[in-house]
Amino acid sequence: MKLYTFWRSNAAYRVRVALNIKGIPFEKVSIDLLKGEQFAAGFRDVNPARAVPALDLDDGKPALFESMAILEYLEETHPQPALLPGDARGRARVRALAQIVVADGHPLQVPRVRKMLVEGFKFDEAQLAHWQTHWYQESLISLEEHLARDAETGRFCHGDSVTMADICLAGWIIGAQGQKVDLAPYPTVMRIAKACFAMDEFAREHMSKQPGAPGAPPA
Amino acid sequence: MKLYTFWRSNAAYRVRVALNIKGIPFEKVSIDLLKGEQFAAGFRDVNPARAVPALDLDDGKPALFESMAILEYLEETHPQPALLPGDARGRARVRALAQIVVADGHPLQVPRVRKMLVEGFKFDEAQLAHWQTHWYQESLISLEEHLARDAETGRFCHGDSVTMADICLAGWIIGAQGQKVDLAPYPTVMRIAKACFAMDEFAREHMSKQPGAPGAPPA
Repeated sequence: MKLYTFWRSNAAYRVRVALNIKGIPFEKVSIDLLKGEQFAAGFRDVNPARAVPALDLDDGKPALFESMAILEYLEETHPQPALLPGDARGRARVRALAQIVVADGHPLQVPRVRKMLVEGFKFDEAQLAHWQTHWYQESLISLEEHLARDAETGRFCHGDSVTMADICLAGWIIGAQGQKVDLAPYPTVMRIAKACFAMDEFAREHMSKQPGAPGAPPA
Repeated sequence: MKLYTFWRSNAAYRVRVALNIKGIPFEKVSIDLLKGEQFAAGFRDVNPARAVPALDLDDGKPALFESMAILEYLEETHPQPALLPGDARGRARVRALAQIVVADGHPLQVPRVRKMLVEGFKFDEAQLAHWQTHWYQESLISLEEHLARDAETGRFCHGDSVTMADICLAGWIIGAQGQKVDLAPYPTVMRIAKACFAMDEFAREHMSKQPGAPGAPPA
């Protein structure tokens, strides 16, 4: 299968890590979101929503799109190792923690939003940094309070094995580190992020190691 | 069960419609997001992410939160009528269409974002309207192109019965209508929205009919 990805994309990172954990081999096709390659006609046919990730299953049918929909598909078709807990309430908790990143924090940081703030509303560098830092902080407060409160939190977000929530959290922390957000106020989040980064399935997909990343080896 | 909701909330609308379709009775507790009631200590205990919806199952455990996590929970615990198709690829498509609203469009319209643009960055009324309209349009382009292209689109987003994607789409159109977005460029989306609005499960949860809405009957 072919994953349309971009080195800097938080959403594509989630899918790469999930594919690694499930042991599914995949080919990477880079779509440079900063150069606007997502708007080219060829990619618009792949995903009319003009975003990565998209996952082509090589079966002649439309590619899957939206990271969380892809993660759920991988979970259903490759159940082991499981990325969701065995009970409905646990699954709800994991999905909700994931959505704090996916549906609350991350949508405010994506290239199209930064572009509109800078080009459409003439944000200067300091204003953009203030915007980005604020929304990282808001989502990290939400994550930290949920995780610190709940008895289900273990070595990872939900117990002692990796779930979709950890994958979303780990990518989010890489983004926050890139933005130089002070992460000291979120000790539970950071403890879990470190447990993720210690795993090769996460470590080898770090944004800085992807083809096209500044300083990364060529594709 | 108790649903923490707000008349204007797109995310809470999704859960109300899903509960209606599944035939699950629920009590509404209004959290006024415009007055900042989501930040009060009492509600912060319910959902540290300081947002609605949250669904208290009256079992002494923490409330469920994040609309899509709640919809998935309802689907697992009350499978009929189904809000997801029977095949993994179909489920991936429905979840992805839903996420165009939930993770791409809607997060840019929520009260906390409008507040930061107006209070933090001094957006005037015209600038805020431009921002809101632009992101409605972007997500509607994505939805329209996916729906118009795919053979799986039927009376609803996926075939001829209602799924999670329709619930998200319908709420999104109510929001766009409130913002006076020109909806003529999205004929497939609008055809599906009308099919939704014709159903009582959707119609009776319209934002304008909720307790607290301007002109609505008192709670």
